Amino acid sequence: MMERSSTRAVRVGELIIGGGRPIIVQSMTNTDTRNAEATVAQIEKLEQAGCELVRVAVPDMEAASRLGEIRRRIGIPLVADIHYNHRLALKALEEGVDKLRLNPGNITKREYIEEIVSAARNRGVPIRVGVNAGSLPPKTKPTPEGLVEAALREIEILENKNFYDIVVSLKASDVPLMIEAYRLFARERDYPLHLGVTEAGAGEAGIVKSVIGTGTLLQEGLGDTIRVSLTGDPVREVRVAYEILQALKLRRRGAEIVSCPTCGRTLIDLEKIVNEVKQRLERMKNPIKIALMGCPVNGLGEAGRADVGLVGSRGGGTLYIRGQMVKRVPEDRIVDELVELVLNYEKTRS
Amino acid sequence: MMERSSTRAVRVGELIIGGGRPIIVQSMTNTDTRNAEATVAQIEKLEQAGCELVRVAVPDMEAASRLGEIRRRIGIPLVADIHYNHRLALKALEEGVDKLRLNPGNITKREYIEEIVSAARNRGVPIRVGVNAGSLPPKTKPTPEGLVEAALREIEILENKNFYDIVVSLKASDVPLMIEAYRLFARERDYPLHLGVTEAGAGEAGIVKSVIGTGTLLQEGLGDTIRVSLTGDPVREVRVAYEILQALKLRRRGAEIVSCPTCGRTLIDLEKIVNEVKQRLERMKNPIKIALMGCPVNGLGEAGRADVGLVGSRGGGTLYIRGQMVKRVPEDRIVDELVELVLNYEKTRS
Repeated sequence: MMERSSTRAVRVGELIIGGGRPIIVQSMTNTDTRNAEATVAQIEKLEQAGCELVRVAVPDMEAASRLGEIRRRIGIPLVADIHYNHRLALKALEEGVDKLRLNPGNITKREYIEEIVSAARNRGVPIRVGVNAGSLPPKTKPTPEGLVEAALREIEILENKNFYDIVVSLKASDVPLMIEAYRLFARERDYPLHLGVTEAGAGEAGIVKSVIGTGTLLQEGLGDTIRVSLTGDPVREVRVAYEILQALKLRRRGAEIVSCPTCGRTLIDLEKIVNEVKQRLERMKNPIKIALMGCPVNGLGEAGRADVGLVGSRGGGTLYIRGQMVKRVPEDRIVDELVELVLNYEKTRS
Repeated sequence: MMERSSTRAVRVGELIIGGGRPIIVQSMTNTDTRNAEATVAQIEKLEQAGCELVRVAVPDMEAASRLGEIRRRIGIPLVADIHYNHRLALKALEEGVDKLRLNPGNITKREYIEEIVSAARNRGVPIRVGVNAGSLPPKTKPTPEGLVEAALREIEILENKNFYDIVVSLKASDVPLMIEAYRLFARERDYPLHLGVTEAGAGEAGIVKSVIGTGTLLQEGLGDTIRVSLTGDPVREVRVAYEILQALKLRRRGAEIVSCPTCGRTLIDLEKIVNEVKQRLERMKNPIKIALMGCPVNGLGEAGRADVGLVGSRGGGTLYIRGQMVKRVPEDRIVDELVELVLNYEKTRS
């Protein structure tokens, strides 16, 4: 297995990012932050999906002044996303946020940054230096070196004030650019890395870009927290993040379903079965591996390595627990019987 | 950029796999192969989506006897997927398929394999040695070494008959296992590699596994053809395959859409806009980069690097061509005006 790069441990509320801790899954709300009600409701959904740290946009003072209320009403640390105006950062700190994200591309005046750093230190709040290829400081090129340079320039201002509670991100929508920027940065400093592909897009395209970018770096041992960016419902970002960590065996959560692509051999409606099983087990948190296979060709092998398995055949399928045959059931009973097996199996383990 | 590993060139119908040629996108039907009508119809859809090579299951002699008809009616080379019964392979060759896939796990008798090889050579048809961790030969362990050993044992039978038109795959549903198996194999032989994660699953989970597995190897310069395996409609497999190649800049096809994840700053319904634009441009084949951004924070930078860009603001957005502002439009006109710009832009380029 890959060895993780050793990074400084940075405390964010009750969480620790870096220092060899499990990789933290985070997301960002897309509600209007001024609407505390809607924002809290979305954060609750994110939390339920496994989100461990949440960021909100702070476009103006009205949004900043809601942060205290939002924070009091949620169960995970809150990050304020700050652009352009350093006063929004100061207000967010006053409101008690757990972390700031500053964009070195749009708060550039040294004295403003220093003012934020002093206030953050007083409250023990860490800062993410969040570089983004879409909003670099003037004259900085969107190259791996340019992104790293933008980060280091801001980091040096923080370090000069003896401030080291720093997390760093170097996002780009261009995947090879993003990958190379993180690799370069990791040779310069040991601050924990927040991985992400920015502006990844919607649906499949967005997932593909996020997965290649973060998955490649994670396999090289880089990354202490990840955010998958997808246009749309952020709950999906959290689900995809766990799928990445699960595929790489870095973290496990809930049902991991192995299922075949179906082919001319498949004699049951496997796609429907997979979707139903997935939906019925959506709320599960304990890790369990389930193989749903259309025929015996690879089915027997996969069922043998899963906690619970299904091997399809004409008119139904055979259920397995850890490779031991349990029973044969007709197609219309597969989902019910399988879900029952899973829930019972979970009970015997806990 | 990554350097591609040099592999032998293997001809499959009109296509060449390996030898530094562009990476071929392939898929597999999930219709009943005995139903030639349905199978041809699905292959036509796959072709339209960009599929360049298609495989069909051959569960019995009736299916095998349809292969000739299917092949005559489609525009891309046809691969017969053979398990258990060597006579199905001989029949498939008789029917004129362009490539065979043999599973070393379930046709194990040397003389049967040799019989297939002679017939394949007579017709100039290549063979994929398709190892799968779910169906390994008896006593072979599902480890990277075990998968490679299973491939080499079969390859040696082929090589002993002076047959070298070989493509190799070493699939597993376990992503790190699959990655390591391909890496190990690439040190042993220079046959072109067919990359894939098997039994990846449905929806997001399946995409994530396929992307990490194939994306990691492609970045190391390994892989001459890829198949994304997803439970469900195979057209999706082709779309995801192109997204992977596009993200890694290995191939481009159609509209590449960069879009932000939306946040509390977003003042237009960006998700809806992205989905509509995507749908309207689905049939485009020429590569074009489009940035759809909710606000100016990263919007100006992304629009500057795209062929056509949108930067959202209250009640509408501004359209850009290669970073030059074109016009401001109200929200309900964004999709129409943007699609028109894209189509005009395409005309001026061609």
